[in-house]
Amino acid sequence: MQPKNSLDYHKVFSKIGSQLEHTDNLGEVASYIPELFNVDPKKFGIHLSTVENRHFDYGDSKERFSIQSISKVLSLSMAFKLEGTALWERVGVEPSGNAFNSLSQLELECGIPRNPFINAGALLICDVLVSHLTNPKEEFIDFVRALVGKDNINYCERIALSEKEHGFRNAAMVNFMKSYGNIKNDVEEVLDFYFNLCSIEMSCAELSQAMMYLCSNGINPLTNEEVVTPSRAKRINAIMQLCGFYDEAGEFSFKVGLPGKSGVGGGIIAIHPKKYSIAIWSPRLNEKGNSYRGMKILEFITTQTKSSIF
Amino acid sequence: MQPKNSLDYHKVFSKIGSQLEHTDNLGEVASYIPELFNVDPKKFGIHLSTVENRHFDYGDSKERFSIQSISKVLSLSMAFKLEGTALWERVGVEPSGNAFNSLSQLELECGIPRNPFINAGALLICDVLVSHLTNPKEEFIDFVRALVGKDNINYCERIALSEKEHGFRNAAMVNFMKSYGNIKNDVEEVLDFYFNLCSIEMSCAELSQAMMYLCSNGINPLTNEEVVTPSRAKRINAIMQLCGFYDEAGEFSFKVGLPGKSGVGGGIIAIHPKKYSIAIWSPRLNEKGNSYRGMKILEFITTQTKSSIF
Amino acid sequence: MQPKNSLDYHKVFSKIGSQLEHTDNLGEVASYIPELFNVDPKKFGIHLSTVENRHFDYGDSKERFSIQSISKVLSLSMAFKLEGTALWERVGVEPSGNAFNSLSQLELECGIPRNPFINAGALLICDVLVSHLTNPKEEFIDFVRALVGKDNINYCERIALSEKEHGFRNAAMVNFMKSYGNIKNDVEEVLDFYFNLCSIEMSCAELSQAMMYLCSNGINPLTNEEVVTPSRAKRINAIMQLCGFYDEAGEFSFKVGLPGKSGVGGGIIAIHPKKYSIAIWSPRLNEKGNSYRGMKILEFITTQTKSSIF
Amino acid sequence: MQPKNSLDYHKVFSKIGSQLEHTDNLGEVASYIPELFNVDPKKFGIHLSTVENRHFDYGDSKERFSIQSISKVLSLSMAFKLEGTALWERVGVEPSGNAFNSLSQLELECGIPRNPFINAGALLICDVLVSHLTNPKEEFIDFVRALVGKDNINYCERIALSEKEHGFRNAAMVNFMKSYGNIKNDVEEVLDFYFNLCSIEMSCAELSQAMMYLCSNGINPLTNEEVVTPSRAKRINAIMQLCGFYDEAGEFSFKVGLPGKSGVGGGIIAIHPKKYSIAIWSPRLNEKGNSYRGMKILEFITTQTKSSIF
Repeated sequence: MQPKNSLDYHKVFSKIGSQLEHTDNLGEVASYIPELFNVDPKKFGIHLSTVENRHFDYGDSKERFSIQSISKVLSLSMAFKLEGTALWERVGVEPSGNAFNSLSQLELECGIPRNPFINAGALLICDVLVSHLTNPKEEFIDFVRALVGKDNINYCERIALSEKEHGFRNAAMVNFMKSYGNIKNDVEEVLDFYFNLCSIEMSCAELSQAMMYLCSNGINPLTNEEVVTPSRAKRINAIMQLCGFYDEAGEFSFKVGLPGKSGVGGGIIAIHPKKYSIAIWSPRLNEKGNSYRGMKILEFITTQTKSSIF
Repeated sequence: MQPKNSLDYHKVFSKIGSQLEHTDNLGEVASYIPELFNVDPKKFGIHLSTVENRHFDYGDSKERFSIQSISKVLSLSMAFKLEGTALWERVGVEPSGNAFNSLSQLELECGIPRNPFINAGALLICDVLVSHLTNPKEEFIDFVRALVGKDNINYCERIALSEKEHGFRNAAMVNFMKSYGNIKNDVEEVLDFYFNLCSIEMSCAELSQAMMYLCSNGINPLTNEEVVTPSRAKRINAIMQLCGFYDEAGEFSFKVGLPGKSGVGGGIIAIHPKKYSIAIWSPRLNEKGNSYRGMKILEFITTQTKSSIF
Repeated sequence: MQPKNSLDYHKVFSKIGSQLEHTDNLGEVASYIPELFNVDPKKFGIHLSTVENRHFDYGDSKERFSIQSISKVLSLSMAFKLEGTALWERVGVEPSGNAFNSLSQLELECGIPRNPFINAGALLICDVLVSHLTNPKEEFIDFVRALVGKDNINYCERIALSEKEHGFRNAAMVNFMKSYGNIKNDVEEVLDFYFNLCSIEMSCAELSQAMMYLCSNGINPLTNEEVVTPSRAKRINAIMQLCGFYDEAGEFSFKVGLPGKSGVGGGIIAIHPKKYSIAIWSPRLNEKGNSYRGMKILEFITTQTKSSIF
Repeated sequence: MQPKNSLDYHKVFSKIGSQLEHTDNLGEVASYIPELFNVDPKKFGIHLSTVENRHFDYGDSKERFSIQSISKVLSLSMAFKLEGTALWERVGVEPSGNAFNSLSQLELECGIPRNPFINAGALLICDVLVSHLTNPKEEFIDFVRALVGKDNINYCERIALSEKEHGFRNAAMVNFMKSYGNIKNDVEEVLDFYFNLCSIEMSCAELSQAMMYLCSNGINPLTNEEVVTPSRAKRINAIMQLCGFYDEAGEFSFKVGLPGKSGVGGGIIAIHPKKYSIAIWSPRLNEKGNSYRGMKILEFITTQTKSSIF
C-alpha cells in the first residue's frame, strides 16, 4: 500500500502548481501586528512527510514563517506529558462553538476553557508549563528543536514584543481565569511565555517534521524517543479534529477530513494518523482566520489522494 | 488484515461480559416520557457488523428499543441526497458548544442551526424532507427499511404521541426558525414528522446494519445501491465526529475515537470508516444525555482493538 | 402650584407646532404587518390630562391608532389585581438589557421573563389573565372601556389576524415558557389573546384618559373605583420606568425622566405621578422601535415644564 | 408641606429601633477581602438630610465604613462635568440585565459598558478622569471633601491594596476594554485609581451630606457651588434609578421607589429629588450583593413617609 500511496503523493504534488493557478488567493493577511501584515501575501509553501520518511514539497516550503497558534499543539503535548490527565480538570476537550478569543463562554463556564486551542486554553497550558519548568522559554524551545532536529529554531523577539503590545485581550483572559483561581502563576510571566510561543518561526518542511510524532504513535522518528504515549497522541489528534480550526472545525473536518491546526500566520498542519504529516503556508486568511489557500489546497490533496480519515 | 481484525473482535466480544461486571451502571433512564422511563435499566445489547459481513454481538442485541436521535443520521443522509449541497445554506456543520436544545445560539445565528444533529438542526432537516417528499412518513420509513433489509421497522405511535405532548421546546424551535424564514412548511407538519422520526424502534443488530453505508463508501451492502455518494458518506461521518454527542462530542472523540451518534433511548451507533459499524444499547444516561455504559464499553472495545481513527 | 403648572402646559403646547417644524421626522414606520406599514407617517397627535381634569392637546389627538404594546400596561394592571404578588413568582421586575423579543435571556433564566413588558413577559401576563377570566377578550376590553369611559373601544380583528400570521417568534416564546412549565393554558389560546391585546385602537385623548389611574393613586377618576391599590400603582410606574422602552429605557429615563411605555404603532404613554398622564403618537420609529418624534417632543415638554421625576 | 414631612421623618425615625427588632439580619458580609469580612455584621447606621438642612439619624450613623461602589456616583459626576456629553460615546445609560462584573455583555457590545455603575463602566469613568486630571487621586479626594465639607475624608490604603490583590476580574475588564480601544490610559494607572476610589471611607452622616447636590439641582449646599448642572443632576438620578443596584435595580425601584446606589461594604445612598438624601449602612448583603437590612429599612421608610417618586 505504501508505494502506491507514495506514488499518489508524487502525482498529486505535480498538480499543485496548475491547481494554484485556478485557486483564488482571497482573504486578508493578518493585520493586528506589522510583522504579520508585511508578509508577502503571494507566498505559498507545502511539505508532506510520510511515516516511511518520504518527502514531497512545493513552493516556498523551506522559508520560515510565524507558526503562531500551531505551536499550541506542541505546548499541549508537552503539558500533557508533564501534567498527565490532571490537565483535564483545568481545561476541557470540547469544541467551543465560539470565536477563538471569546470571553463569554469562559464566563459561562467559570474560568475553565473549553479546549486547549482557543486562546484561553492555550494560555492555561502556558500556566501549566510555567509551573513545571524551571526556564520555560528555554526548555520549551529545546523540546521543539528536538522534534525538528535543528538547533536554530527560535522565538522571534520582535514578533513576541509586537504581540505583547497588542495583547490586551489575552491579558484580559489570563486575569479573568486568575479571578477564578485557574491560573497559578504570575499573570505577566504567563503572558510573556505565551507571546513567545506564538512567535516561533519554522518552514513547512520543519513544521511537518516537528509534528511527525502525531502520526507515529507519539514517537519522534528522528530520535525514537517517546514524545507522548500512543494513546495520548491519538487524543491530541482527536482534539485537533474537533477544535483545531476555531469556529471552522466542522468545515475543515467536512472538507479536508483530517485532524489539523491553523495559525494566523497563514500556516496549517494536518495529520493523517499512521500515514503522514503535512504543513502548508499561505498568508491570506479567510473570515474565520484560517489560511484561505491552505484550506483549498489541503482539500484538493485529500480528495485526490482519498486520504480522509472518515 | 481482515482475518486478524475479525479474530480481534471475537476475542474482545468474549470479554464484554466480565468487563460489564466491572463497569458501574450509573446515570438515569430518560424520564421525560413514560415510554422511555419504563424501560428496564439493566438492558444491554451490542452488535458489530464488518464490511466483510461478519457479525459479533452480545446481550440484548436483538431486542428493539427507541433509537431516538440516532435516526437523525438517517434523515440527514436522505436530505443530503435530495437537497444536495444547498442544504448547507440552511444548516451549519460546526459543533455547537451548547446543549442540544439551546435556543440562545439559534438566536445569535439568526435561525441557522449550527449542525444537523442538535434539535434545531434536526427539525430543519425534517422541514427539508417535508418539502421534497409527497408522503414524508411513508417514504422515510421505506428508506430506513431498505437499509435494514426488513419490512417491519416502524414508528412507535405511542412514543411519537408522548414526544408531542412534551414537545413544547421543539415547537418553540420550529416557530423560532420560521420567524427567521428558515422553515418553509407548516409548523405542525414538521413537528409531527420529527416526533415520528424520534420514535423509530430497532435492535442493535438492525441499527448496525442500517448504518453500514457509512463504512461502505455510501453503498447499502444489502442492495448495492448508493445511499449517498462516497464523498457525502465521509462528510456525514465528519459531522458525526464533531457533533454527534451534543456537548460531549470532544469526550467521545477523545475516548472512543470514532464518529458516532447517540440517542436518549440509550443507544449509540459508531462507525469505523471502511471497517465496521457498531451499535450499542444501555438505557441509563450520563449527565450529558449519552448512554453511560454505552460510552464505557465502546471505549473498552476501541482501546482493545486499537481501532480509533486517530 | 396647580394653576401655575396648568398655565405652563398651555404655554408649552402652544409651542409644539413650531418645535415640530424644527424636529426631523426620521426613522421608519413598522413594516412587519401591512396594517402598521400603511399608516401615514406624518400623523402626529398628543394629549395631556392632569389630575385636575384639565386637558391639553395638539394635532391628530382624536384619531385612533394601534396602541400595540402600550396595552401591556393595562393587562399587567389587571393581572396584578387578580393574581396579587404571587405574580412575581412567574415574572420578574428587572430591566432586560436585551431586545424585547430575545429568547436567550429567557433560556438563561429558565423560562421566567425578566419583566412584564418584554414580549415573553407580556405573553405570561396573558396566560395569567386567561387563567382568571371566563371570557378573557370580553372581560379585558370591558376593563379598558371603563378606564376610557367609552363603549366603543375595540380590538382590530384585521390587525390581530395579521399579527398572528407574523407571530412565529411569539409562538416560539409561549412554547418555550410552556416547556419550563411557566405557561398554564393552551398555547393557541394565550397567543390569540395576546394578538388581540396588541390590536386595540385608541386616540391620544383616550389613551391618556385610560392611564389616569397611574397618576391618581390607582383610582379611575371617571368612576372613583380603584383599579389597583395606591402601592401597586406606584409599582407599575416603577416597572414602566425601568422596563417600558425595551433596550432604550435608560435613554428615555435620561432624557424624558418619566415612567412610560411605547408601542410599535408609534404611540407612547408617560406618567407624571400625582400630576398628569400624557399620550403621544407619531408612527416613525427609531432603531430601538420607539417613536422617533414622540421621544423628541416628550423630551421637549418635560424640559420646558421641568417636570421630570428626578 | 416641609414641616409636615420633617415631622414625618422624625416620627418614622423613632420607629426604626423597633422595626429593626422585627427585621432579620440575613445575608453575608462581603468576604473577598479581609477588611470587609472583618466588619461587625451587627453594625447599623442611617442618616437623612433634607434640603432644608434638617437631619435625622439612628444607630452607628457617625461611624465610617468603606463606601465602595457608592463612590461611583461621585466619580461619574466629576467625569460628566469634565467630559460633558461626549462621555456617552464611551459608556451607555442602559441597565445591564446582568451581574455587575459580567464580561459577556461587554463582549457583545464591543467594549462599550452598558452604564457607568457596572464595574466595567466605573473603570471606564476612571480612565476618563485619569485623562483629565493631573493628579487624579488628589484631585478626586479634594472633590469629595468639598462635598462633605471635611478635610479628613480619605482613601483607605489597606483596602485599596487588598482590592488590588483580588482585582483580577477588574484587571480583565480594563484589558478587555483596552483591546477595543475604549481605554486610553495605562491599564495599571486606571486600576490603581479605581481601587482607591472603592476604598473611600465615610459615615452615613457624611455620605448623605456628600450626595445633597443630587437633590439640590446640582448645587453643593455647603458652598453654593454648582457640582453639575441641574439637568445633569437629574440625569445622574435617572441612571441611579435604572442601574444603581446591579441586577436588583427593578426590585429597589419597585420596593423603595427612589434613585439610589449600593456598595458591597453594606452602604446604600438614596435620593428623593428636591427633598432629601438618605444614607444607610448594614454590612450583611443579600444574594445580589446589596445590603439586606439597608433595603428593608429603606422600604419601610419610604412606605411610611409615602415618599416614592412614583
